[in-house]
Amino acid sequence: MLIFYRQIDLKDHLKSISAPKISIGFVPTMGALHQGHLTLMQQSLKHNDFTVMSIFVNPTQFNNSEDLVKYPRTLDRDIEKIKSVSEQIIVYAPSVEDIYNGKTVSQSFDFQGLEHQMEGRHRPGHFDGVGTVVKRLFEIVNPTNAYFGEKDFQQLQIVKKLVEILKMPVNIVGIPIFRTASGLAMSSRNERLSTAERESATMIYKILCQAKIQFGTKSASQVSDWVKKSFDRQSDFRLEYFEIADEATLLPCIRKSKFKKYRAFIAVFVNEVRLIDTISLN
Amino acid sequence: MLIFYRQIDLKDHLKSISAPKISIGFVPTMGALHQGHLTLMQQSLKHNDFTVMSIFVNPTQFNNSEDLVKYPRTLDRDIEKIKSVSEQIIVYAPSVEDIYNGKTVSQSFDFQGLEHQMEGRHRPGHFDGVGTVVKRLFEIVNPTNAYFGEKDFQQLQIVKKLVEILKMPVNIVGIPIFRTASGLAMSSRNERLSTAERESATMIYKILCQAKIQFGTKSASQVSDWVKKSFDRQSDFRLEYFEIADEATLLPCIRKSKFKKYRAFIAVFVNEVRLIDTISLN
Repeated sequence: MLIFYRQIDLKDHLKSISAPKISIGFVPTMGALHQGHLTLMQQSLKHNDFTVMSIFVNPTQFNNSEDLVKYPRTLDRDIEKIKSVSEQIIVYAPSVEDIYNGKTVSQSFDFQGLEHQMEGRHRPGHFDGVGTVVKRLFEIVNPTNAYFGEKDFQQLQIVKKLVEILKMPVNIVGIPIFRTASGLAMSSRNERLSTAERESATMIYKILCQAKIQFGTKSASQVSDWVKKSFDRQSDFRLEYFEIADEATLLPCIRKSKFKKYRAFIAVFVNEVRLIDTISLN
Repeated sequence: MLIFYRQIDLKDHLKSISAPKISIGFVPTMGALHQGHLTLMQQSLKHNDFTVMSIFVNPTQFNNSEDLVKYPRTLDRDIEKIKSVSEQIIVYAPSVEDIYNGKTVSQSFDFQGLEHQMEGRHRPGHFDGVGTVVKRLFEIVNPTNAYFGEKDFQQLQIVKKLVEILKMPVNIVGIPIFRTASGLAMSSRNERLSTAERESATMIYKILCQAKIQFGTKSASQVSDWVKKSFDRQSDFRLEYFEIADEATLLPCIRKSKFKKYRAFIAVFVNEVRLIDTISLN
């Protein structure tokens, strides 16, 4: 039996029993789930009372309509994969109408420069699309924690900036890249690679690892030149960008500072399929 | 695993898991607990997830300062009694300061006439005091259901009116009078009766039962006259009032209507101790 003598103590107790603190973990995805997504799910399950996973191919973040059409859609298989990890997941697989309510357009955001680098430069409008859908999903799910893979490191930083700007009470958690044994970063786009392409795509991570070693003694521009030359020799690769940037601002590294954390970013076409990867240089 | 395709369905589900509906039952008392109070507690325990019982001798509802001083205060014994029924009760035993915060005065209410009858007429300011403390306690506890004994039937109607006027989302539940085997209505004031007075006080309920029978064939004023004469013959009783009134409005019954429910109300002094009782006449 509990006895309270002061209303403030009673009120606190009644609040704690009336509205118990429930944490909701959220893993937004575009489906075509792979081990990288499942790792995010497992983290969310571990740290939250409930986990919501959304599966939604967001049209406004595709700058290329062919890419949007070709993006793999595998809902039934995705649901099987989720079930194999946990029956406790709450799946949200909305239609475009349910999210955009007839107006499939992006809101315009000021991400304070983060959106002008790399993916933002090469995929115009991409991060406005990401911001629009993430904001919408956060409003719907109201998560305590939301999980994003570090493969899309720039997106992770953009989402952190988004909740800061909008003052949304969501904790953004970045999860390290899940790689195959041969080093290829898990990506839904890997499904579009042939077996031979998948094999040669392992070169991307090997180059990143080499770049990391070189960055110990060489300048960012020397490392970049070496990476570009390495891809020039490969006929089935077309390098879109390789950049060494400050992790916080995503601005290119001109002169190394020991007070900053750096990261290498790469986008490369393996024939028709565009892949991205990243590695911490610290 | 749950799958949602529409945000409205997902939101509903998340709401249900984030803020589960918890019902709080509330039994406000002035302590000196008896079986009547314990019956209220048991009703609350049965129908709510949590039960709060307050023990607070409310100064603003006493029109007579001697009555306030003499009102029995038995917190330790009350707590033992509560424990014997359930360890699950949340007890709230505030100080006058905690409730009134330095201003021990009543708010003035318009209970649409209910406050001008019987107890209201004989105890000036009583129902403003009741309204003030019940409003305050409801604000603190925020109960789903609040339990009141029908012995204080006028108070029960006043409290129902209070939540109606203030639009407080509290369901007011009236619980029938608990009587000893000899018919005496349980009351904290019974503690102030001697054994002999307690024995003679059983007359009150006997008179009420007789009145009920007489009301089948006689008019309200005929029954009232008979009750008054019955008490005139008793030297240790002083009748304050006996009234037959409409249950809903508490207005005296002038001419019986078969569309109304009537109830007899009595207040009587047994030597120094004022007792009240009531009986349904239908």
